[in-house]
Formats: sequence, structure tokens, C-alpha cells
Amino acid sequence: MAEKYVYFFGGGKAEGKGDAKELLGGKGAGLAEMTNLGLPVPAGFTITTEVCDQFYKNKRKYPDGLDKEVREHLERLETLVGKKLGDANDPLLVSVRSGAARSMPGMMETVLNLGLNDKSVEGLARKTNNRRFALDGYRRFIVMYGAIAIGIPREEFDHKFDDIKENKTRARLNIPKGHKALDTDVNEAELEQLIPLLKGVYKKHTGKDFPQEPIEQLWGAIDAVFGSWMADKAVTYREIEKITGLKGTAVNIVQMVFGNKGETSGTGVCFTRDPNNGENTFYGDLLMNAQGEDVVAGIRTPIHLSELNLKMPRIYEQLCDVRLKLEKNYKDMQDIEFTVEEEKLYILQCRSGKRSPMAAFKIALDMVNEGLITREEALLRVTDKDIEGLFYPVIDPNISQDELEAKYLGSGIDAVPGAAAGQIVFTAKDAEEWAANGRKVILVRRETSPEDVGGMHAAQGILTATGGKTSHAAVVARGWGKCCIVGCDALYIDYIKKVMSIGDKEFKEGEEITINGSNGNIYQTSLSLIKPEFPDEYYTVMKWADEFRRLGVRTNADTPYDAQNGVRLGAEGIGLCRTEHMFFDTEERRLAIQEMIIADTVEHRRTALSKLLPFQREDFKGIFKAMDGKPVTIRLIDPPLHEFVPHTEHEQRQLADKIGVTYEHVSRRVERLHEANPMLGHRGCRLSISYPEILEMQVRAIIEAACECQGTGSKVFPEIMHPLVIDKKELKVLETKTREVAEAVIAEKGVMVEYLVGTMIEVPRAALLADRIAEVAEFFSFGTNDLTQLTLGMSRDDAGRFLPDYVDERKAGVFKADPFQSLDQDGVGMLIKMAAEKGRATRPKLKLGLCGEHGGDPASVEFCHRNGLDYVSCSPFRVPIARLSAAQAAIKGKKNK
Amino acid sequence: MAEKYVYFFGGGKAEGKGDAKELLGGKGAGLAEMTNLGLPVPAGFTITTEVCDQFYKNKRKYPDGLDKEVREHLERLETLVGKKLGDANDPLLVSVRSGAARSMPGMMETVLNLGLNDKSVEGLARKTNNRRFALDGYRRFIVMYGAIAIGIPREEFDHKFDDIKENKTRARLNIPKGHKALDTDVNEAELEQLIPLLKGVYKKHTGKDFPQEPIEQLWGAIDAVFGSWMADKAVTYREIEKITGLKGTAVNIVQMVFGNKGETSGTGVCFTRDPNNGENTFYGDLLMNAQGEDVVAGIRTPIHLSELNLKMPRIYEQLCDVRLKLEKNYKDMQDIEFTVEEEKLYILQCRSGKRSPMAAFKIALDMVNEGLITREEALLRVTDKDIEGLFYPVIDPNISQDELEAKYLGSGIDAVPGAAAGQIVFTAKDAEEWAANGRKVILVRRETSPEDVGGMHAAQGILTATGGKTSHAAVVARGWGKCCIVGCDALYIDYIKKVMSIGDKEFKEGEEITINGSNGNIYQTSLSLIKPEFPDEYYTVMKWADEFRRLGVRTNADTPYDAQNGVRLGAEGIGLCRTEHMFFDTEERRLAIQEMIIADTVEHRRTALSKLLPFQREDFKGIFKAMDGKPVTIRLIDPPLHEFVPHTEHEQRQLADKIGVTYEHVSRRVERLHEANPMLGHRGCRLSISYPEILEMQVRAIIEAACECQGTGSKVFPEIMHPLVIDKKELKVLETKTREVAEAVIAEKGVMVEYLVGTMIEVPRAALLADRIAEVAEFFSFGTNDLTQLTLGMSRDDAGRFLPDYVDERKAGVFKADPFQSLDQDGVGMLIKMAAEKGRATRPKLKLGLCGEHGGDPASVEFCHRNGLDYVSCSPFRVPIARLSAAQAAIKGKKNK
Repeated sequence: MAEKYVYFFGGGKAEGKGDAKELLGGKGAGLAEMTNLGLPVPAGFTITTEVCDQFYKNKRKYPDGLDKEVREHLERLETLVGKKLGDANDPLLVSVRSGAARSMPGMMETVLNLGLNDKSVEGLARKTNNRRFALDGYRRFIVMYGAIAIGIPREEFDHKFDDIKENKTRARLNIPKGHKALDTDVNEAELEQLIPLLKGVYKKHTGKDFPQEPIEQLWGAIDAVFGSWMADKAVTYREIEKITGLKGTAVNIVQMVFGNKGETSGTGVCFTRDPNNGENTFYGDLLMNAQGEDVVAGIRTPIHLSELNLKMPRIYEQLCDVRLKLEKNYKDMQDIEFTVEEEKLYILQCRSGKRSPMAAFKIALDMVNEGLITREEALLRVTDKDIEGLFYPVIDPNISQDELEAKYLGSGIDAVPGAAAGQIVFTAKDAEEWAANGRKVILVRRETSPEDVGGMHAAQGILTATGGKTSHAAVVARGWGKCCIVGCDALYIDYIKKVMSIGDKEFKEGEEITINGSNGNIYQTSLSLIKPEFPDEYYTVMKWADEFRRLGVRTNADTPYDAQNGVRLGAEGIGLCRTEHMFFDTEERRLAIQEMIIADTVEHRRTALSKLLPFQREDFKGIFKAMDGKPVTIRLIDPPLHEFVPHTEHEQRQLADKIGVTYEHVSRRVERLHEANPMLGHRGCRLSISYPEILEMQVRAIIEAACECQGTGSKVFPEIMHPLVIDKKELKVLETKTREVAEAVIAEKGVMVEYLVGTMIEVPRAALLADRIAEVAEFFSFGTNDLTQLTLGMSRDDAGRFLPDYVDERKAGVFKADPFQSLDQDGVGMLIKMAAEKGRATRPKLKLGLCGEHGGDPASVEFCHRNGLDYVSCSPFRVPIARLSAAQAAIKGKKNK
Repeated sequence: MAEKYVYFFGGGKAEGKGDAKELLGGKGAGLAEMTNLGLPVPAGFTITTEVCDQFYKNKRKYPDGLDKEVREHLERLETLVGKKLGDANDPLLVSVRSGAARSMPGMMETVLNLGLNDKSVEGLARKTNNRRFALDGYRRFIVMYGAIAIGIPREEFDHKFDDIKENKTRARLNIPKGHKALDTDVNEAELEQLIPLLKGVYKKHTGKDFPQEPIEQLWGAIDAVFGSWMADKAVTYREIEKITGLKGTAVNIVQMVFGNKGETSGTGVCFTRDPNNGENTFYGDLLMNAQGEDVVAGIRTPIHLSELNLKMPRIYEQLCDVRLKLEKNYKDMQDIEFTVEEEKLYILQCRSGKRSPMAAFKIALDMVNEGLITREEALLRVTDKDIEGLFYPVIDPNISQDELEAKYLGSGIDAVPGAAAGQIVFTAKDAEEWAANGRKVILVRRETSPEDVGGMHAAQGILTATGGKTSHAAVVARGWGKCCIVGCDALYIDYIKKVMSIGDKEFKEGEEITINGSNGNIYQTSLSLIKPEFPDEYYTVMKWADEFRRLGVRTNADTPYDAQNGVRLGAEGIGLCRTEHMFFDTEERRLAIQEMIIADTVEHRRTALSKLLPFQREDFKGIFKAMDGKPVTIRLIDPPLHEFVPHTEHEQRQLADKIGVTYEHVSRRVERLHEANPMLGHRGCRLSISYPEILEMQVRAIIEAACECQGTGSKVFPEIMHPLVIDKKELKVLETKTREVAEAVIAEKGVMVEYLVGTMIEVPRAALLADRIAEVAEFFSFGTNDLTQLTLGMSRDDAGRFLPDYVDERKAGVFKADPFQSLDQDGVGMLIKMAAEKGRATRPKLKLGLCGEHGGDPASVEFCHRNGLDYVSCSPFRVPIARLSAAQAAIKGKKNK
């Protein structure tokens, strides 16, 4: 039997079903479902997404037999409604609309009134007894077909229409100059003049007459829908939204109904609940005497549903019934398109309704309370974006699109969501000073480094010219939930003149900009922002999430402040405490670490280290207290030493003075620290191998802090983690030294402290040899930032230039999403899986965590759940997302069993 | 039954055997073997290496029962020789010597005359009727025991002896001032005075009297031998020589025989063949009336074996018989230690003799001709070091060690062997200019970059302050077989003043130095050098190697010159032709590539590329002609673009002028090209993904060249290789484009050309996903330089600072050798194995090669053989080593079956 490519619906029965979204698209499945539910849906048929798939697989050729099948279904439709497409007396008109399994802007939307031609338009005129209506329909069809299906610039059609309105209609109606005639003002005669002009535009562009043969029109529209699947806009949208695995779009051909047949007709959109706050009230409006496109155009003011109740209570009642049936059927808030044609209601489309983050939580919770859905289902309804939406300030949604467009400067990579506005500064020092004077600043840098951390903290938001989503700027800003845009390629900074340019616009220090980290856009001037707020429903839903998830969620935190923040947001421990961040906190600390680095003997190094010890110990005490017995994974020093030292002559001279050595000594030492590829250099545990005294100081600080806390009644559970390990022998050396120091401190203090010694798995070799490494390590924490960099051979700081091509399916198309944000499950994931299995084969109770940026990414969290990790760790502000994602992963996992 | 820790030999029979080297050490096994062969070996016993192993495993405690076993064997020895250790009348004296399975300087060597004390010395005097002899023996024993076993500085003993010689002996013999008395001049009375002084030195250092109890002396010496196994010197030696897997050292306790019993006694060393040229003549000499240590001291002149024949023909004849027996038994040239005691010959040791590279080839070949060994065995006899020794100039061996030490400045990493001498220059430009004026120069740089290639070629040798064995300098120099030292940490260069310092010595431009790339040493002034020469035997042995090996050997070659060189040295194809090296050849080419990079539109880029096309085409033609149908793997552009552009303002301004753009344009573009980690940046096939026009130009140049060569009768077989691939999709995009261009050129030219399209496997992800990638790739070439960098997370340019700690077994001890030189088989090897298996699972005939630096390393070549690779590719000068190693791998593989 040949494959079935076309599905019919109409007359109260449909061949398709609501769950056949993959095959029929969301729209087609909805129409089928609603037909089967007995709702008043116009008849029609759907050409499947399978056709789209085959079309592209076979060099834009349709499968054999499609033509015949479409003809048969068209005939069936004609028979059902008793009209013929293009009939000169009583023509059937249809709409042609695309519809993939997921809603997708950028694809061809709708061609209405298809089937009109020079003859059938007169038939429609006679039949409706309204020639103006028929001609207006023809006008709309020519424009839509020409603009949407063929791709002729719509303005060219609009110019013709505007000419008529300006020169004929306005004059005829004596509309004063400066005011415009409305579409509805145009009369029959004027439309009659307009139509040949529109056809002329069509001919100018295509070289052909406007098609009169309805079947040719139909195929033209079908071609356009399938063609739009691979249009740049659609492809880009799929990329941005990480939509993959779809076969293509379906095409829906549906009998036209008319909302523009006078004052008892209209067209509208409604939501089964309020999409802004989630209240269980009927929400929507309609435009009387209008077709769909008029609603979008926004020329006339629509009326609210309550007014419809006054005007046409029967219709309103019917609509309320539809609302209930659909919610009961779909168990979710629905977005419904409907048309009233001469007091008869038609439902044209329904789909899951978009909602605000706050509404998402409220609706999910309410539906559980109403018994419509289970808690599991509720947890699958809210998304990471919903949580994000609660957390971050946004640009005032009342600012018009036009204003935004006028102020738009350019865009970069959306590293940390939320919006920020303030004055431009170019150095961390300036940021700190200006902020101290009460000014709001945006720190704009080519890139940031650990020395900039103070200024970054002081700024409202951060904008950098280079880097990707896991660059230094992004990682640090994310930790604070601070708006950040990175990798803005168009941004050029002249640090000397204190001027930046984006494209051809220049800005001086102190001028104002607004940045939107949720989409990467940059605007001139300070735009007004809306602060976030949390609904009660959020807390309930998160409580459920904690009940359902198996995977632990920890936070990355380097300070007591971060630790408290993480706990407040639900973290069950610290998965990554980066000790080196503590070295930058104050001038005194910076000096001690720099002195340690400049030292050229073990004795000098030890002296400098002994100055750092009390600082580290106090920091650890603060963190241990904040975590109160929850596990705290502390990573020993990781970055290459040159990140800690000054690089300008001036600063080097200052440092030399302060630590009492010559400038030449400092400058030579710094020069020798220079590395061609610092990422692959002298860093991580390699520092502790070369300079065991650093490890000794850090372990001593940790265990002393632990003993002191424990001694005063707090519980502590440190997990000491060695970064960048590549071998069992190396870890054994580190572990032995670690335990020696720890046991010595425990003996000195006479306080028993439990602790673990483990390692990051962040170098491919460590993953490959994890079975051996697990002989020594008591836990693994997958450092997926570095593991991704090394497995892919891509520096996150440099990938900005080429990574977009690797996510673009028209270029290399390797990744579905930025692999520094969402784990590359095929490659890096294979290593993690391998390491987890090998590690547990050696040590069945090996504790496994993940502490890269991926710990806050839903897909990556699910990966960790599936692969038996014990926990993920992410920045405090991602903790709720990780909790939700872990619950969702558990629920999905159960379902799939 | 308890384990046996001690093995006896003597009386014509031994408990051990010659093949028990692992257990008895080389020396112990040799003594056992010679005893069993009936040679005149003094009796004794060997404590096994197993004891050493247990000693270290059990915190320096000997296994139970050892004490008893040693006592029993000592008694057996005493019974056999009829004397007792320490006997007051006729004492047995023994020597105590270490001996591991491989010869190892740095371990405790020998304590002679053990068993002497204040009483037994008089017994010996009476028994030998020579009190001076006995006292001299006691003197030697105290000094050796004190210095070697206990570790007292030998000078302190020497001072006492010198005092006696100066103040007593010289005076007594009226030796004029300024001349010294010889050891043999010292008489009985003076020795009698000396001995208490030596004991005093011993007491001063140990706080104890010199041990009089012979069994205490014996255990003292045994402790010292086992203790020396882990002495720094021994550990370092094992690291340098890559000696691993040994259990430890054995201890040999052997009855003393005396070469210093007058003019019918003597001690000597001989080789069964000439170790310098390999001639089958008896080679060696002996020192009359001397003990072993006198030979080393070199005070008196030894006599040649031919003189021995005149003096003691019976002994000479006996020695010749030993020579024949040992060669027949061991089937290798032997190094024999012997002593003549009052016209009685004793063989004290035999081992495989060290020989010059030239001798190695001659001896191997001769022994095959003599029917002593097979060709397979001959191939296992010569080593990579032998081949290297034939290739490179060396410092004149007649220059004394003292002179070398006096001129020694410091050392770096021995990147490319051979020696070079010349004047110091600090820039590539200077190197080129000075060389053009006929001067010999050494190019000294902090590091080198592709722009320096011209100057590097012009220099005699290259010295850099940074980098490892696979840094740019090392890789390029190796390609030319040019002496190169890298990573000289003590080297500091002031480019502005044109001065360099090594440690505290300063050198100006133009001053002379000598560098020895074989050991990394740097000397002041120009030392005289010896040019390499090739014996005929080399060619015969290499022919055999080619017959036995399965693995193909190709060369890395970027120019027709390299290609010819490679073919001359036996390469069967080019495994890696780096196209970008062609871009630096001339000013014109450099300008075109720079113009291409600075271009900001596709059109500009295409214009610039079209200038490069003819250059590349001509280069490829030259290479194809040189290879004449042998496969040529051409890697498309690989380095990040910033490597091609100038970085100083001056040069940027020049470039701007030449290509007609503003300086700001150039400088901004260059700044934007900057990368934090270029190794992980926008390079490799990522460039062809971003700028497909570069790929188009390169493929066109390759195929045009191939068509033109083929058209004129040469055969060509290009293999087009895409570097840095991480995914099948990415490679598919590149492959499609490659084939499109290639087919277009083939159609244009009307000449059929066969070619393959494949990929480097040099990123861990590619190895992990090799099964998928093999769906597209027709061949894989493992780029083990980058694969090692990424798998280990170590930049070869930066690893110099910490990698030594990773090879040092007292520090991290992860690698047995520099993993950039000898493949990390555990980690990187696992990925290669995985990728090879996965690749072949998809495409059984997938061609597999390796083209990193490892292609010229014997252990890595063996790995490739074992894992079924088709070929290795290395720099031209390593091709013979690869051929030999491949043959050795095949022979060993057969043996193990």
C-alpha cells in the first residue's frame, strides 16, 4: 500500500488525531483533534510533514502520488461543502497554512482566500451579494500570494493600495490632509481599479500573469510552505530555540470562513487562562468585521470577550464551551484562534498557549489543584526559561518595538540573562570608583580577567568584545546572576582614548547604554527596567521538584556570600569552591600571592604563603559555617600563575617596590610565566606538583578552618579536590601530601574532621584512565568546561569566532547548541559515561558530580541523571533550574521505563 | 618452601644461568653463565634483585631468612676456597658489587678487599709474604668502604694519602718539587702511618670506629648497594635512559683476585671486536700490577693485548679462547673484565659491549655473514641511536672532558641531535643576512614562529629559551636534521640590546657558541666538529629492515627538496605535506596570504587567494614529481591566521601600504585575530568552514598540479587531508566542497586523477566518534602532536616548565618519556586504538597512518605496528629510524606469537 500523505478532517470526523503532531504538525493535529471533539472546525486536509522530509531528501521533488492524493482530498472537500475551488458561480475558497510540530516564526504563515480569480471573484460577489467583500478578498489574496508565497516585497503592493487610498478614497470622503483613509473606506470601484495594479506588480516581479487556475494557485502556495521550511529565518529560529529532529512542516488547506462579512462577523484570539498572571479567567479579544491579517495590522481596536458576551451571547457561550472542552482535552492552557461568520462560530486553530513565567507556575499549580494534571505533569510544564524569567530584571515591556529598534546598536552572545542599564566604563577600577559614588555603570571590556572581578561586581552589567558563554566574564557574572553579554564582534574599544565603537557608532566613557543579556542586544541610552518578583506558586513547584528528583544539586560558590545565596536557592552543598578567587579580594591578599609567585626559592614562597594562610582559613570558616555540615568541594589552586601578576611596567614597578625586589626581577619572572596556550599550561595540580608548598598551605587552611568550626559546634564536611589530574600516580602524590598535612593539622588541633580527597575529571586522559584514577580518588567531579575545551580542541575564549558556524546547520552544523552551554553528549558525554563506568567499576561507591557550566543546563542535567551521577553543581542562580531539570529528568526517566 | 634469595657460583658450576638477568642482574647472570661455560671465574654468590624489590616494598627491610641464606653461602664459599672471611692467618677477601639487569652508572660500584681488618691484614701479609701489598689492600678497602659504601667525601681520604706522599714519600725518594710521588712509590712504613689516619677520617664522619667484624663490613656493603638503587643519580639515569620495569639491583659477592701482586699480575678490559669500527679483531689492554680502580685512575699507561701476547703468551692464548667461547655463547660482541694474578687468568665480568654506531652496523652484518646470528637478530642489534649517530655531526671526541666542562654554559632540552657551532644572532633576518655573507650562525630566540623559518634554515643550529621537543623550533629543525636545543630555562634574551645571558654569563650578538643537540649542552666558543659518514653496512641492514617490516614509512615534507630527501632516505610516500609552510617562502607569497587575511569581503579574499594559487600549484607539481606516483597526503591550511600577519606597528604600516589599506584597518584586523589559546582556536578545517574559498583555492592548486603532472606522464596520487576535524557532519561539508572543486578541475583539464579525501584524527572527539567520521573519510592520519596536547591538556610550547616533573619518578612520575616524543600509549594510545577499531568497523579498508613527531620514535612505531596502522610518517631524517623500528616491531611481534 502506498504511504498516506494527506489527512482529511471535516463533517465531525477527522482521519488524523491530536497526538499526531509529528506527522500533521501542531496545527493539523489540533484541527483533527478539534474536529473529532465535535467543535465547529471548517473542513480541510493536511499534507504531512513526511512530504516535507521527502521533498528535501529528494532534491525538492515531491513523492510520487502526492499530486493525485491532493486532488482526491480537494474533491472530497468540495463534495463535503458543496462548492468547487475557483467555481465561477459559488467558489470554494481555502486558506493554506504551514504548521510544524512546534510553532515556528519565520516560516510561511498563511495565504487566505485562495481560489479567487477574475471569474470566481464575481461568483463570490453574486453569491454573497457583496461585490465589495469579494473584491476586497481578491485584493487580499493577490497581495498575500504575491508577498508570502512568491516573495515579492509587500511594500510594492502596499504602495499601490496607498495611492488609491490617498488619491481616490481620501478625496472622495473629504478626509482632511494628514489623515489617512482606512482599508474599510475603500469602495468597490476603487478596489476594481486597484486589482489590475496589484496584478501588474505581480507580473513585474515574476514575468507572468497572476495565476488564474485555482489548482496552480494551490500548488504555488504548497510549494511556498515547504520552501519556507529551509528559509534562513526559519533555520535561524530553530537554531536559537534548539529545535531539532523535526521532519518538516505540514501544509493545512482549510475551507475559508469570513470574519469580514459585516458587523455580525469577526475574528479573534483567546486564551483559556490569563497568560500574564495565570488566573483562571477567560482572556482574549476579537476584531469585528475583519480577517486574520487585520488583527495583526492593529489598525482598529479589538473588543474584549466580555463585550462579545454583550453583543453575541450565544457565540460567547459557545466559545466558553469550547474553552472548557479544550482545556479538559489538552489539560493545558490553550491559545485559540476563532472566526465568527455571520453569527456562526468557527475554531481555526488551538495550541498550547504561551505564558509569562509567573503564569506558568500559577497555571501548573492550579491545574494540579483542579485535578486536571498530576504533580509530575505540572513539573514538566514549567521550564528553565520560566525560572530565569522570575530571576532577572527585564526591559520594560511597555517600551515599543519601534523605540527598541531605533535604539538598537548591535548584539553579542547572551551570556547571562536579564537587562542592565548604566554609564559606560572601560576599566574595573573605574567601575569600582564610579559605583562607589552611586553611579550605575556597565563595564565594557575586550575581555575580563580575574583582576577585574571587583569592577565586575560593582557594575550593573558586563559587555565584552570577545569570549563565549563560558568565558571568564560569563562565568563570573553568572555566579552573581548579573547581566552579561560577551563576544560582541562589532565592539571595538580604544582603552587609551576611553572610547568604544559598535559598528559605526562611537561612545565615550560615561555615556549610557542598556544591555539585554537574555537576547544579547545592546541599546543606546538607559532604558527603564522591570524588577523580578517571585510568586508563591514557585516555591510549591520547587518543593515538588525536590521530592521527585534523585540527582543532588549543589552550587558553585567561592565566598560565604555565594554559599548563603546557593543554600537559599536550594543547594545541598558546594560542588565547586574556587580557592583562587579568594586571592584577589583585597590588596593585601593580592600582594601576598604575587610575592609568592615572584619568589625564587622555596623559603621565599613559604614566607609569602604563610601570609595567605590566615585569609584562606577565614574564608573557609565562613563557607563552612554557611553550609553547616553540607559537603563543600574545595578545588585547590587552578589558574596559571601569570593570571595573578601585573603585566604593565608601572604595576610591575609598584609590585617590585612593595615586595622589595628589583623591577627587572619582577619583569623577568613575569615574562617567564608567559604561556602560548595558558589553558594547556602550568596550572591546576601541576602547580602543586611543582610547588608542593602551595598545596600544603591550602590544605592546612582548609583543615584548620574545619577543625575550628567543628570545635565550636558547626558540622563540616570538606572534599578536597585536585584539578587537572591526568594520571593515578600524579594523584597519588597529591593525595599522599594532602593526607599528610591534613592528619598533621588534625593531630595538632586534636579535633576529628572527616574529609574526602578526590579529583576533577576535566582532561580527556583522566576520563580514559578513570578506572586507575579511582583507585586513589574518593570522588570525581566532571569539570565539563575544560573537558569540553580539550575534547573538542576549542578554547571557550576564542570559539566565538567560529562556533556559530558549528551550530548553524547550513554551515558545519555539528552541535545542536553551544557545547559550552549544553553538554556535547556525543563526544564529551561519551567520555563522561566511560569515566563514570570505569570509575565505579574500580570503586562502586565513587561519588560522581559535575561542576562545569553545564550543571545549570536542563539537557545536561538530564544527561547526568541518566548516567547515574550523584549531583550537579552550578552557579547559585542556576540552582533552581538544576533542581527542576533534575526532577523533570527523573519523571521522564520513569515514563520511559 | 621459602624463596631462594642467594645464588652460588664456583668450582665450575653455578646455580644461576645467563638468561636470568632479571633476577641476578647482568653481572650476576654473566658470572653464572661463565662459570657454567667452564671459564676461570672466581667463586662467589649473588643476592637477587628480588631482595632489592622487597627491601623497598617493605620500608627498607630485608626479607626474612636472607641473613641466614647469606651466611650459608658465605660458608660455602669459604669451604670451596678454603679460607675464612677475616681470618687472622689466611683471610678470604671478597669484592661486593652491584649489578642490575641493565648497566647503570650512578649506582654503587665496587668495594674491593672486603674482609680486611687490623688482624687479617697481617695474615694476608704473612700468607703473601708481601706486607706492603696487604697494607695497600687495607688502604684501598678503607677508602672504598668509607667513600662508596658510607658516602664520606673521597677527597678527605685522598688528602691524608697526599700528605703522606708529599711529606714522606717525595722526601724519601728525593722527587723534585712540583713532581708527585706515585701510589706505588709509597712504602710499607708510610702505609702503616697512613692507615690510622684513614680510620680517623672514617670515625670523624660516622662517629664509629672502622668496622673490624668482617660480617659487619659485608652487610655494610650490601646495604650500600641496595641503598644506591634509589640514589638521585641512579634514578636520573634510569629516567634519561628510559629504563623502567626493573625490580632493582642484585649484589655480587666474589672472591678477590689480585692484579697488583707484581709484574706477573695485572688487570684489564677487552672487547671481542673493535668497538670503534666493528672490525673482527681482539681489542683491549691491561695495566700490569694494578687493581681495577687503578685502571680508572689512569695514572699509568696500560699495555695493549699484543704486548700481553709477548709477555705472557699462555695467558694471551687463554684470553683468546675466552673471547671465542663468549662470542659463540652470547652471539654478540662482549666487553670482558679480567685479572691476571701471578700468571693465572680470572674473568671477572662479561657483558654486551658498547660500540660506535658504525661498529654496530658492521658487527651485526659480520655476525650474520659468520652464521652467528640471523638477519632478524641483526636487526634487533642496531638501534635508533646508532642510526642517529651516523647522521649528525658531533663535537670532536678528542676534546677533553675538562675543556668541555670549562666551556660548559648550561643546558636545555635536546630537541634535534647533532652539534653546531657559530656566531650568535637573535633574529631570523640577521641569520639570513649573516649566512648569506658566509658566516656560520646559531639562531638564538625566545621561541620561533613560522616567520622565522628562513633564518632557521640559514642557521647552523637553533637555540630557544622556551618550548619542548615538539615546539615549532624543534619540529622545523628536525625536518632538516638541524641541531636544535629548546626550553633552555636559564637563557634570557634582550632583543633590544642584542644580548643574551645564560645563568650569569652574557653574550653579545656575533660571539661564538657551540650547541650539542644530542644532550642539550651549550658551550662557549666554537668547538671543532666531526662530520657524519655512512658505512656500506648501513645500507645492507636497512634493506633487510625493509624486507621484514609490514608497516609503511612515509616522510613529512613540505617542499620538493624535503620530498627528495625523504625518498632518498627510504620514504614510501609523503604522510604530511603542510601547505601553509609554502606561504612563507617569498615576500610575494607572504604578501598574498596577508592580503587574504586582512580582506574583509569574500571578493577581496578570492582576489588575494588567486595570487597564491599559482605558487601552491607549482610547489605541488614539484612535490608530485619528486614522489612520482607515491601517495602524497596534503594537509590543507592548519595554523591560526594570526601566525601569518605582522604584529609590530612598523610592519603593519608597511603591509597596509603594500596592499593599499589603512594602518588602522590592518591593526584592528590583527588585533581581532588575537587568541587566548591559539592551539584551541580558529584553525585547521575551521578556517575552511568559515572561509570555504581558501579550501577551494587549495584543492584547485592540488588537482591542477596533479592534472598537469599526470598530463606530462608523471604519476600522482594525492590524498587531501582536512585537519582538526571533530565531527562527521563537518567533514561531510568539507569533503563535498573538496570533491566539487576537484571534479570541476578534472573536467576542465580533461585529465583523470585519482585522489582520496580523508582527515587527521587529532582532536579527542574525532577519535571518540571515529566510526561515524569513517563514513566520510577514506583515510585517517593520527596527528599525535595535537592529539597528545589535547588528551593530556598540555601545550607542547609551555610544557617545558612542568613536564620534567611528570617524567621524574620522584615527582609525579606519570610518563616514562616525554609524551611529545614517545607516544603516551596508556592515554593517547587508548584513543588511537579506539579510533582505529571504530574506523575500521565502519570502513574495513580505511587507510590508517600516523604523522606526528612520534612517527620517528621506536616505541611509538612499534605501537603503530601492533595496532594495525598502515604507515607512520616522520621527518626525512627519522625515516631510516622508522624503517628499522618497524622491522624490529615486526620481528618482536613474530617472536611473541
